[in-house]
Amino acid sequence: MTTQKPSPSRLAMVPFVSVAHMMEIVNGIGSAKMMTELAEYIERDFRRWESFDKTPRVAAHSNEGVIELMPTSDGENYGFKYVNGHPKNMRDGYQTVTAFGVLSNVDNGYPVLLTEMTVLTALRTAATSAMAAKYLAPKSARTMAMIGNGAQCEFQAIAFRALVGVEEVRLFDIDPAATAKAARNLAGSGLRVVPCRSKEEAVAGAEVITTCTADKQYATILTDNMVGAGVHINAIGGDCPGKTELHRDILLRSEIFVEYPEQTRIEGEIQQLDPGHAVTELWRVIMGEEPGRRTETQITLFDSVGFAIEDFSALRYIRDQLERTGAYIELDMLADPDDPRDLFGMVRRAS
Amino acid sequence: MTTQKPSPSRLAMVPFVSVAHMMEIVNGIGSAKMMTELAEYIERDFRRWESFDKTPRVAAHSNEGVIELMPTSDGENYGFKYVNGHPKNMRDGYQTVTAFGVLSNVDNGYPVLLTEMTVLTALRTAATSAMAAKYLAPKSARTMAMIGNGAQCEFQAIAFRALVGVEEVRLFDIDPAATAKAARNLAGSGLRVVPCRSKEEAVAGAEVITTCTADKQYATILTDNMVGAGVHINAIGGDCPGKTELHRDILLRSEIFVEYPEQTRIEGEIQQLDPGHAVTELWRVIMGEEPGRRTETQITLFDSVGFAIEDFSALRYIRDQLERTGAYIELDMLADPDDPRDLFGMVRRAS
Repeated sequence: MTTQKPSPSRLAMVPFVSVAHMMEIVNGIGSAKMMTELAEYIERDFRRWESFDKTPRVAAHSNEGVIELMPTSDGENYGFKYVNGHPKNMRDGYQTVTAFGVLSNVDNGYPVLLTEMTVLTALRTAATSAMAAKYLAPKSARTMAMIGNGAQCEFQAIAFRALVGVEEVRLFDIDPAATAKAARNLAGSGLRVVPCRSKEEAVAGAEVITTCTADKQYATILTDNMVGAGVHINAIGGDCPGKTELHRDILLRSEIFVEYPEQTRIEGEIQQLDPGHAVTELWRVIMGEEPGRRTETQITLFDSVGFAIEDFSALRYIRDQLERTGAYIELDMLADPDDPRDLFGMVRRAS
Repeated sequence: MTTQKPSPSRLAMVPFVSVAHMMEIVNGIGSAKMMTELAEYIERDFRRWESFDKTPRVAAHSNEGVIELMPTSDGENYGFKYVNGHPKNMRDGYQTVTAFGVLSNVDNGYPVLLTEMTVLTALRTAATSAMAAKYLAPKSARTMAMIGNGAQCEFQAIAFRALVGVEEVRLFDIDPAATAKAARNLAGSGLRVVPCRSKEEAVAGAEVITTCTADKQYATILTDNMVGAGVHINAIGGDCPGKTELHRDILLRSEIFVEYPEQTRIEGEIQQLDPGHAVTELWRVIMGEEPGRRTETQITLFDSVGFAIEDFSALRYIRDQLERTGAYIELDMLADPDDPRDLFGMVRRAS
């Protein structure tokens, strides 16, 4: 058998998935199915957690927000995400969070995918939350309260329906227009949608409480008396220093599960706690090394900040859809002289 | 006066400069002129060194090479470069180094430029070397030895002609084909090109010695006896842990200038020295805070590893050429729903 070397001029091109392509992929596969498949990719990568090169994200903070790079590698592929977080953007008609990402081949360092990740991050975040809830929420959970009805809300609702079996979502946002938007989008999703006029009304009867608000400040979206026995809290919004959503007392009553403690202690709800406070790594629960939910009455908390491995899984997933969907173009992003040492000659010959 | 808010849908598009565009830009401006202009941008940014948010690059090492992210920010713009270094790539017909980069707006986190940086890095590296040599090489320097005639060679030669006044380059490479390639490319450049059969022959009479070889190992491209009094050494090739080009004794006889000591001590020639060994930061020389070359007989060494600020300058430069050259396309890279909170609705409406 002859193995044919891939043509370098082919490899100099990088597939690019635009926002329009990503929407085509989501609508082609269906958001519920896509998040279910994404959750499988993420879970598979969490099962080989120790084979990843992990590092806390590299953040550049400013008065208005943060720009972050989140790299990771499994030794075969390397991925990173660029993501910003600018709470005030919304006021000006921009997205609070936008993102794009790259997947590369570790052996030769060549990128194999460039993709928008604003939409993809929304999908992977919801897929991760729902995947965690499979292990942490009460098995009987059918009702979810959603505090914060912004860009992440509907994705969470649909992922929890697909992966956890949630049937009712109870929506609350300080801006009723956001709740109306989410309710409109979720009509026909198969979920029973209940817009609520207060946080207290939203959490009534909910076995799962999802918080995803966007304020960059110590906020108290949930107070201690709002969280009853047996509840699973899916805390999404607290994801940078100074940005938390839960009252500290709730944390002290909860068993806390995190992605990567080194990062979560800086960015998550647990930045409010002593650095030595016990937390459980989610991957150990998935591996069966640590218990998830132990009793019907305990409060579980997934203190999610979003970790690079989830983006890596999402990048792998999108790369694997390229052939099936054809939703990409190729970018002439890598110089490829006939003789690798003749970069100068390549430039000159182009004139 | 009415200030008009830029349309978000316009901002959702990111200008992309492909390899073909970059070659069009280089050939349109001319490589000598472009490196002169780049050196001005770099020098201007070195003059405001302390206003930058600096961090050593984030590297993912593997057996075959390294993938790095090099971010920096001046508080107004944020830039990063993705770059790989895979010495064995050349054997397979791939580039040892490929790169791309992004420039963003700090205020809202939105990228404003995505560009190839394989060609651009070659230009900025040579521009930086020549800019440093303006301060460090003997004023009378007209002859440069170039050990290593790979992808970086011709750019260095042309930048040193344009910025330092070098008239003769003496080429040596362990592969005579590389030397022949460089000589061919430099014919008509205005430089007197002298191919040499040994390193010793190449350095004879040279006031500047540039080393740019690509081996990932402790190599000894220059030995102590090859470096006479008054020479300026421009050491480009040693740029990661375990990769050096100069014999330690040369370092001990030289006054050493570096970009960012924290990074150079890990990656540069000075990784061979005691961590406390005195070095001078180039930006301080440019600012007049520290002397550059003090005597005609001293040996100066620019231990260059390439720093994020140089890439930042290059990104700024390319952004500033977009309008003048029109050499870019726009990529639909950022999701831009009419209502920033309605990401889900945007996706669904696209179906």
